[in-house]
Amino acid sequence: MPKLKRISESTISRLSRYYRALVQLDKDNYETVSSKDLANLEHLTPAQVRKDLSFFGSFGTRGLGYPVRELKDKIARILGVDQEWNVALVGIGNIGSALVSYKEFARQGFKIKLLFDNDQRKIGSNHKGIVIRDVANLTRELKDNHIEIVVIAVPPQQAQAVCDDIVKADVKAILNFAPINLKVPKGVSLRNENMAMELEHLSFCLVNDHYCEQG
Amino acid sequence: MPKLKRISESTISRLSRYYRALVQLDKDNYETVSSKDLANLEHLTPAQVRKDLSFFGSFGTRGLGYPVRELKDKIARILGVDQEWNVALVGIGNIGSALVSYKEFARQGFKIKLLFDNDQRKIGSNHKGIVIRDVANLTRELKDNHIEIVVIAVPPQQAQAVCDDIVKADVKAILNFAPINLKVPKGVSLRNENMAMELEHLSFCLVNDHYCEQG
Repeated sequence: MPKLKRISESTISRLSRYYRALVQLDKDNYETVSSKDLANLEHLTPAQVRKDLSFFGSFGTRGLGYPVRELKDKIARILGVDQEWNVALVGIGNIGSALVSYKEFARQGFKIKLLFDNDQRKIGSNHKGIVIRDVANLTRELKDNHIEIVVIAVPPQQAQAVCDDIVKADVKAILNFAPINLKVPKGVSLRNENMAMELEHLSFCLVNDHYCEQG
Repeated sequence: MPKLKRISESTISRLSRYYRALVQLDKDNYETVSSKDLANLEHLTPAQVRKDLSFFGSFGTRGLGYPVRELKDKIARILGVDQEWNVALVGIGNIGSALVSYKEFARQGFKIKLLFDNDQRKIGSNHKGIVIRDVANLTRELKDNHIEIVVIAVPPQQAQAVCDDIVKADVKAILNFAPINLKVPKGVSLRNENMAMELEHLSFCLVNDHYCEQG
């Protein structure tokens, strides 16, 4: 498969949505799906769906549509969810603790292998089957355990220091829940999850009588 | 202010990010900011920043930039975060419970007023100062308490029924954490928070040697 260097953030998000829709269609025993039906499911236009999928070398057959399972498997490969990823989570507070129980992660192949905290009362204890480690050893433990993705769920004041330790371990993918802009060197992918921003999106819609599509 | 009907999802997200950057700049006592500095902070191009802000009637002064506080207040009005919103949360499991403690919500004016669950052991109990109500009375209680935004944090199998009850209460804004596509009538704004999708974004980047900017 050619490496896809130039692809927009929103295209990647749409691929995730197609993937979810296709998993469901496959479960429901659909063999094919038209661009129109896939567009309806995801509140997009059929033209957008066709454009996205042709970009990835998938072409529907006129009158038949796309083969569900084949397209699902192809997008899984593109998204990297046809394999398992070693994930570590730093900060076992309210959010962190909820994430450990979040079944969608494991279902998509994201296996939380290591947990870290700086609270001496938590370190060494067992949290849903995983021992909480001391964040002081973060860099070394991430390296030793071949962690590929790290989730940051610490308070904002501690997030940059934690992020720096993760970068030192040569981890190339970070998901940040702390409400702060982190600095990472080029080559490290950083995504921010800010749940307040989603609410702002909704208040924007309320204030402006603007109808927000699913996103 | 003119009503903004035609504005893309990604523009609204960028406004949220400008707003965050401006709040921080104001706290740090900056009086002005250039489009270049604002772009750097948010990993965007200066042209994008100027385009977005001119769309909202804000023009920087050449050599001086944008007035920080004025621009911050203006974007707060556009996003609707200069006012308080009455929020209800349905589903006090792991995620729901973490959201009640999520300080960013209250900080942006999103006040969680009501909590709902269907677990008889939880109903009537006090959760961080708020009594958990019976989801069986959802529609009536949302109406009686003038709730404007509802957050769904129930298991996927229950999410559509809960969503239907919310819509019946004439609530126009829903934030959904259940990993399922909900159906809402036109005029109801729905946003989905799917944390696994953010991880998929990162695995995409790892698989394709693609460097993901902050987003």
